[in-house]
Amino acid sequence: MAAEAAPKLGIIAGGGEFPGLVIAACRAEGRPFHVLALAGHADPQFIGDAPTDWIRLGEMGTGFKYLHDQGVTEVVMIGPVRRPSLRELAPDLRTARFFAKVGLKALGDDGVLRAIVRELEEEGFGVIGVDDVLADCLAPQGRIGGPETDDQAEADIARGITVAQGLGALDVGQAVVVQQGIVLGVEAAEGTDRLIRRCADLRREGPGGVLVKLKKPGQDRRVDLPTIGLDTLREAAAAGLRGIAIEAGGTLVLGRKALAVEADRQGLFVVGIAPSAEG
Amino acid sequence: MAAEAAPKLGIIAGGGEFPGLVIAACRAEGRPFHVLALAGHADPQFIGDAPTDWIRLGEMGTGFKYLHDQGVTEVVMIGPVRRPSLRELAPDLRTARFFAKVGLKALGDDGVLRAIVRELEEEGFGVIGVDDVLADCLAPQGRIGGPETDDQAEADIARGITVAQGLGALDVGQAVVVQQGIVLGVEAAEGTDRLIRRCADLRREGPGGVLVKLKKPGQDRRVDLPTIGLDTLREAAAAGLRGIAIEAGGTLVLGRKALAVEADRQGLFVVGIAPSAEG
Repeated sequence: MAAEAAPKLGIIAGGGEFPGLVIAACRAEGRPFHVLALAGHADPQFIGDAPTDWIRLGEMGTGFKYLHDQGVTEVVMIGPVRRPSLRELAPDLRTARFFAKVGLKALGDDGVLRAIVRELEEEGFGVIGVDDVLADCLAPQGRIGGPETDDQAEADIARGITVAQGLGALDVGQAVVVQQGIVLGVEAAEGTDRLIRRCADLRREGPGGVLVKLKKPGQDRRVDLPTIGLDTLREAAAAGLRGIAIEAGGTLVLGRKALAVEADRQGLFVVGIAPSAEG
Repeated sequence: MAAEAAPKLGIIAGGGEFPGLVIAACRAEGRPFHVLALAGHADPQFIGDAPTDWIRLGEMGTGFKYLHDQGVTEVVMIGPVRRPSLRELAPDLRTARFFAKVGLKALGDDGVLRAIVRELEEEGFGVIGVDDVLADCLAPQGRIGGPETDDQAEADIARGITVAQGLGALDVGQAVVVQQGIVLGVEAAEGTDRLIRRCADLRREGPGGVLVKLKKPGQDRRVDLPTIGLDTLREAAAAGLRGIAIEAGGTLVLGRKALAVEADRQGLFVVGIAPSAEG
């Protein structure tokens, strides 16, 4: 793909390794970029020496100014952001105006993120999805690593899809753990790793549980796509789970090759599913 | 109420203090009763010297026989039971037949309990709700203890009702914690106390969260009514919550007077709500 046509990309960076991958992808393509890193979320070790401005979450006005000053016209949001309370936010005028408009109290996580996308667009930025930059990180359909699924696993995946879609429709979380039909745990603000860890204590005898992680129904793919990586797999193995089912085309997989090797080694399945067909 | 007309009551006892309250109520009324205690769930200290047979969960056949032998014609199920996997259950012939019929894999907690009620009825037992025996333990509507709710608390309660009803419709859990519109946690197999405890770590700055606990939509009131007690209130206070909202007429409150005193002391509201009107 010719890089000269691509406009300068603003990378709004939350937590984890993905911002680093987007930076590497821009460099590989020769695409100009500028990082807007969210203090308390973005990890300096993954941003390295990339050109970066740091802002607090509440400094939306300053952030917009930095991006305009850098000549950014297209932005991507990548990496999880822990949603703060309004008091923690200490919003600048621009941010306060935003929350006055959207009404913080009434919104779930996804509602806030969708509103931020609209706000960026009103500021004149094009907002793209991380899958536009990192297409090869999206989960494929079918077996990704580990053994084939059996009837019990498929029944647990089906129950997990129903619960995850219901939970997602309420804009609460993306992940659920099901063991032999029993819903051991559902994710809200704690995140997937902590969900998996607590399910270790709730484990029943017999075949282990399955983690199901899906995009929320109607979720804008430009924000907060569900993500798994080697850490997720290791947490799952430590908690006695027997597999992970993720949404094909709707979940980011970090380090897929290493994940597949580790899944084979641990005997834990990782599979891409199409929930709308099954749900 | 004349006691001589009331048939002998079979008390199928799960965990916690409620089985002891039902025993005390029968004694106070002079109503004959017999306890069928579930090993690993019922607490001997609350059953005391009441006439009791102990069975494992998987010994449904033996349990039915004990109740028939005792001349029991009416039963009540009281106290939480942790749902086991089929392997843990080690079912007797009668229990295995039951699960072959209802299909363990496909059922949530409530589905299994409803099926048990039907099975008891087919065995010739009348099944009554614990509120028939302990009417004064049901939550009333309105303020039970602590301060009045403010606008933020009411917005959090409304969001909690929506999420709890959605979660309940999926037959997953009964409780949710919401702080300033953020769903900190939702309950599945871990139970309410552990839900509250983990929300302490997820707490945001500013006004604390609210625990909302409701009967599942369509839940048979004869099984597993949501319950709170002094322990719930103390866990909530320790986790920085500012209040508890429970379903009026659909939640059991253990030791309401002591709860109200403690709620006042801690400055933590406890309120009975009618979710169908607000939800």
